Amino acid sequence: MTAMQPPDRSPAPPPGAVDLRSDTLTRPTEAMYERMRAAPVGDDGLDGDPTARELEAVAAEALGKEAGLFVPSCTMANLIATLCHAPRNQQVVLEARAHMYTAERGATTFTGTFAVGIPGEAGAMDLGLLEEALRPAGSGLATGLIGLETSHNNAGGTVLPLAHMKAVQTLAREAGIPVHLDGARLYNAAVHLGVAPAEIAQYTDTVALCLSKGLSAPVGAVLAGSRDVVSQGRRLRRMLGGAQRQVGVVAAAGLEAVQTMGPRLVEDHKRARLLGAGLNALHPDLSASRPQTNIVQVDLRRTGQDAAQWVSALAARGVLVRPLGRDHLRLVTHRHIDDADIEAAIEGFRLCLAQPAAGRA
Amino acid sequence: MTAMQPPDRSPAPPPGAVDLRSDTLTRPTEAMYERMRAAPVGDDGLDGDPTARELEAVAAEALGKEAGLFVPSCTMANLIATLCHAPRNQQVVLEARAHMYTAERGATTFTGTFAVGIPGEAGAMDLGLLEEALRPAGSGLATGLIGLETSHNNAGGTVLPLAHMKAVQTLAREAGIPVHLDGARLYNAAVHLGVAPAEIAQYTDTVALCLSKGLSAPVGAVLAGSRDVVSQGRRLRRMLGGAQRQVGVVAAAGLEAVQTMGPRLVEDHKRARLLGAGLNALHPDLSASRPQTNIVQVDLRRTGQDAAQWVSALAARGVLVRPLGRDHLRLVTHRHIDDADIEAAIEGFRLCLAQPAAGRA
Amino acid sequence: MTAMQPPDRSPAPPPGAVDLRSDTLTRPTEAMYERMRAAPVGDDGLDGDPTARELEAVAAEALGKEAGLFVPSCTMANLIATLCHAPRNQQVVLEARAHMYTAERGATTFTGTFAVGIPGEAGAMDLGLLEEALRPAGSGLATGLIGLETSHNNAGGTVLPLAHMKAVQTLAREAGIPVHLDGARLYNAAVHLGVAPAEIAQYTDTVALCLSKGLSAPVGAVLAGSRDVVSQGRRLRRMLGGAQRQVGVVAAAGLEAVQTMGPRLVEDHKRARLLGAGLNALHPDLSASRPQTNIVQVDLRRTGQDAAQWVSALAARGVLVRPLGRDHLRLVTHRHIDDADIEAAIEGFRLCLAQPAAGRA
Amino acid sequence: MTAMQPPDRSPAPPPGAVDLRSDTLTRPTEAMYERMRAAPVGDDGLDGDPTARELEAVAAEALGKEAGLFVPSCTMANLIATLCHAPRNQQVVLEARAHMYTAERGATTFTGTFAVGIPGEAGAMDLGLLEEALRPAGSGLATGLIGLETSHNNAGGTVLPLAHMKAVQTLAREAGIPVHLDGARLYNAAVHLGVAPAEIAQYTDTVALCLSKGLSAPVGAVLAGSRDVVSQGRRLRRMLGGAQRQVGVVAAAGLEAVQTMGPRLVEDHKRARLLGAGLNALHPDLSASRPQTNIVQVDLRRTGQDAAQWVSALAARGVLVRPLGRDHLRLVTHRHIDDADIEAAIEGFRLCLAQPAAGRA
Repeated sequence: MTAMQPPDRSPAPPPGAVDLRSDTLTRPTEAMYERMRAAPVGDDGLDGDPTARELEAVAAEALGKEAGLFVPSCTMANLIATLCHAPRNQQVVLEARAHMYTAERGATTFTGTFAVGIPGEAGAMDLGLLEEALRPAGSGLATGLIGLETSHNNAGGTVLPLAHMKAVQTLAREAGIPVHLDGARLYNAAVHLGVAPAEIAQYTDTVALCLSKGLSAPVGAVLAGSRDVVSQGRRLRRMLGGAQRQVGVVAAAGLEAVQTMGPRLVEDHKRARLLGAGLNALHPDLSASRPQTNIVQVDLRRTGQDAAQWVSALAARGVLVRPLGRDHLRLVTHRHIDDADIEAAIEGFRLCLAQPAAGRA
Repeated sequence: MTAMQPPDRSPAPPPGAVDLRSDTLTRPTEAMYERMRAAPVGDDGLDGDPTARELEAVAAEALGKEAGLFVPSCTMANLIATLCHAPRNQQVVLEARAHMYTAERGATTFTGTFAVGIPGEAGAMDLGLLEEALRPAGSGLATGLIGLETSHNNAGGTVLPLAHMKAVQTLAREAGIPVHLDGARLYNAAVHLGVAPAEIAQYTDTVALCLSKGLSAPVGAVLAGSRDVVSQGRRLRRMLGGAQRQVGVVAAAGLEAVQTMGPRLVEDHKRARLLGAGLNALHPDLSASRPQTNIVQVDLRRTGQDAAQWVSALAARGVLVRPLGRDHLRLVTHRHIDDADIEAAIEGFRLCLAQPAAGRA
Repeated sequence: MTAMQPPDRSPAPPPGAVDLRSDTLTRPTEAMYERMRAAPVGDDGLDGDPTARELEAVAAEALGKEAGLFVPSCTMANLIATLCHAPRNQQVVLEARAHMYTAERGATTFTGTFAVGIPGEAGAMDLGLLEEALRPAGSGLATGLIGLETSHNNAGGTVLPLAHMKAVQTLAREAGIPVHLDGARLYNAAVHLGVAPAEIAQYTDTVALCLSKGLSAPVGAVLAGSRDVVSQGRRLRRMLGGAQRQVGVVAAAGLEAVQTMGPRLVEDHKRARLLGAGLNALHPDLSASRPQTNIVQVDLRRTGQDAAQWVSALAARGVLVRPLGRDHLRLVTHRHIDDADIEAAIEGFRLCLAQPAAGRA
Repeated sequence: MTAMQPPDRSPAPPPGAVDLRSDTLTRPTEAMYERMRAAPVGDDGLDGDPTARELEAVAAEALGKEAGLFVPSCTMANLIATLCHAPRNQQVVLEARAHMYTAERGATTFTGTFAVGIPGEAGAMDLGLLEEALRPAGSGLATGLIGLETSHNNAGGTVLPLAHMKAVQTLAREAGIPVHLDGARLYNAAVHLGVAPAEIAQYTDTVALCLSKGLSAPVGAVLAGSRDVVSQGRRLRRMLGGAQRQVGVVAAAGLEAVQTMGPRLVEDHKRARLLGAGLNALHPDLSASRPQTNIVQVDLRRTGQDAAQWVSALAARGVLVRPLGRDHLRLVTHRHIDDADIEAAIEGFRLCLAQPAAGRA
């Protein structure tokens, strides 16, 4: 490890800030705390924890799959799916900006596979390039897995059209290759499309659902798929150190998340649209995306300042955001952002535009 | 995966049984539930969760190390330690019956290392064979890590003498090789030796402490070591999918475990001795170990029945135990086992000895 | 493995064809056969083979490195370099069309690293993007190795400017990251630049030199670098199954290749230029590159036929070439291609242009 | 890598010594050199090398398999077989002293599998323990491959009884697990049993045959098995860097080895018996094995000197042998050892017994 590594953790944000850095910031609801306290627990390494079992069943049904597996994080759900599907020494094909390709590439190093990034539009891989990647030349690797992501984080929370997902599934089936869905924000996609999560997940063999983003559970994710894959995944979870004992104490919060928190995402999406529109109205040099879900991307290229400068200028005004590359920002709405916060955030941008140099102080 | 795999989970045990299968069965205490409800939480993937941070600091201090890392399980703590210490294409030397060698071998498959089991006595590797293993012949692998375990699960909860640990440390330092301690039951060892955990951990570079065995936290473990190793481990935890968001909800229970649950292990040890003595008094054909900590091993070889037969015969009498190989049993005392349970367990054995055939029904 | 895999081997080419598919086709020279017969041999797994030892010393000196290692292929030399330099769970940064990234990606699956492709021009990575890749964000992987390639196969045999190599070295040293050179065709680059191979290799920590391309040895490559790295590489070679016994029988041919075959590459380069110029003169729709070394790329996009159609149309006229993507061809000159072959090849293209439909028959 | 690593190579032996260190020392025959010079060659990465193709076919037929793959070494043949058969995250079961378990453990680190050593007698695994290993408990790994070795190097060149091989095959088939044979010295086993190699190999799915031990080829091995496995192995060979270009130059020597060198192994076996008997007749404190093939083990425990002392004492008298652990020697007969050498070797031992202290000088 080199000296260029970032520090382990950023300093804590100032209290009272409008924190648009991520929907992973959401704290558990009161109802979650109550269920955590009341849930029956058991030893998930021996007889099985009854609450985790219930969460797995409930999530599997919501996703239209035979079985589910509760895991510590969505990264582990994606890693286990890769291990279940893709044999060693084969390649895994992902959209080039997919979270599994960019932020979770460390997980790939445990799999003995090679990750291939296919360029795409709005998170959807170019189908022609995908087809080429599945037909390797002489020295090429066989493809062991295709991965999709919806809503697509780095593409600004865009939602894959169901027709695209179906087209990928068709190509994959012709080639005998399984498809996995990184559904870290699947419920956001479902809310946008106005369909049940299972209608989206039907196009993929497995799906990873994160419970600790907009759904607000403190920790955890579910990997859902066929009984066979989930049974294999359960063994791999133990190998990776993801099996836990009285895990019902947190699975209970996950149950609350899956059963009750989906519908409220519509509010996050509404506020994201307000935020985007408000920023676009501020100044012609500031260009915000028109969000489908809860992520707004802001193009800073005409503002004369780069992302790092904007991040600190906004922070000085109590608005926390994250850079996306050198000249974009990412803003995420979530349960702790209300209408007043949206107004405050827009005001923060306005002040920065008025006094851009402040960001350098 | 073959059809010979075991089912994913055993059926749940009958209520009211005396469950001696493992101290992992321990459920959270009331105080733990209260702390879980009250703990401040944050995003451990962004600014850090304050309760996890506190647990890491408290555990590190208790273990005499610079820093700590909260992880989902002791298996992951051991896996991350291996990844931090042992470069790819080197070997990891363990006692041949160590939990990392037997039950956690799946984790080894993610490391690109080769696990070598060194025969030992009461969990302590033969020092001559260890020394040989560190001096590879022409085609031998360099050794990247030596692992110890105390108390030692498969050796019947035996505690490594501090002199042995010091001798291993000396050999390791001469060879420039780090030492890791699988301290899944380190507090049991400390209670037996009458020393602080840090007095044991001083002989190793890193130590994994399980919070969900006798210490009764629902989930989790801490990996402690130097700031550098823990910083590297934090990155690896994320790669493996072990990083979680508002993880303070369970770290809070871990804090309670580390701060208050150690001293009560003395009761488990006392009851284990009572259990062993009671079984030895039953019949000359039944031979129980004299436990140092909370694990009793029972030698069945003179009883004419094997472990599987004994397990089911005892279960029929409400006593749950686990087989250890073909002709031994493993009995573990813990917080939910009181004096009456010990008597009931001994009575269960007595009934089985009186009517051995019942076990076959 | 899927049914989409290519057959293991193509059918043999027709005798008498002008075979421009690769310089790997070159057969050993008479002098090589004589040296193979006369070379002293020993057991390279025991005392060392004297001829391999000599080749390693001669190649290391030619490359300006302390030590060398004879290996079965350049792919293995690159794989061993990656294993020596890049720790597990780190990333390896390569130009996006580098042979190590495209054709040797299977080797990456054995290393526990993640390969990152950086877009470039004429085989030279964009230095700004390279610098960014070395500065990972929070969840990013540390970079364990930077790889260069010169001459660059997929970029049409282009040669990296020494200033570019020096700039990469400077960036790498600042970040404490080693640099490896895939010098499969290093001697072609040296001939083009008019410098000794060591002048190029000075900018990298290790270099892989292929003996069986233009240099015409039947098999083998040399990995050169510091004594430490080569010593580590020798152990890894054994682990991979690349250590051989009386390997002097083929190392002898490699000695002949290194000592005598470099200067004649100038002829291949001259003929490649003739070939490119001849094709460009044929028809405005056919666009050939102006080769720096022995590889000509032909752009077919204006011809109305794709690469597969051109490959078979040319084959029908006795000219063997390989497709490069969908609409380019790759033509390689080598020792078995003389001036008459160049004329015949141009004539083949001319006939195809005259009767394009023949290609579809 | 630590400072405890051995030097890369031993110093060369004195000329004229009786070199019993290994049959890997055998140099190519005149006939081999002639065939190497005359063999047709091609590009094995393009159209295939005709001589390698012939060797693969001839070896496959001799081994009773559908197809063969020429690889640089027997270590690579065993590695590729493991990669073909055993999925990642499963275990490979071997006899505890098998060459694949002891000397080739580095190869295991590239496979993502866990190697399990089963204790055995004369190289034959205990069948009861094997059966247990195939039936994993809850956290156990599935078994992806069983490996056998005959003749068994570390067991003194002993030959597995065909009934044992059949019993292993039966167990394996019941469990749906493939079996691989490390036949580094398969021809020695065949000569001992008086059967064709294919009669032995029929009990395993794949077989690795080394060409550069008693069979005297300079380099190389063949992996033989079903067409499917060999086709998969061919891709893996390329990934590992084991694919070579005009490899017919050495495959030609392999052809000579397979076609003509087997019968003469009977002489090596006869001389090994003479050597063992001669040593046993020297002194009651010196105990040599009664060899089945070409390996003699000498037990030094009653001589008062350890293996290292004997190795140097014998070397001082012109007899080169290798230590086997602390108190045994391994002596190997081969094509360059004639009757006079056997007498000289025995005389060397006699002198050492007469003046044991000389060994310490």
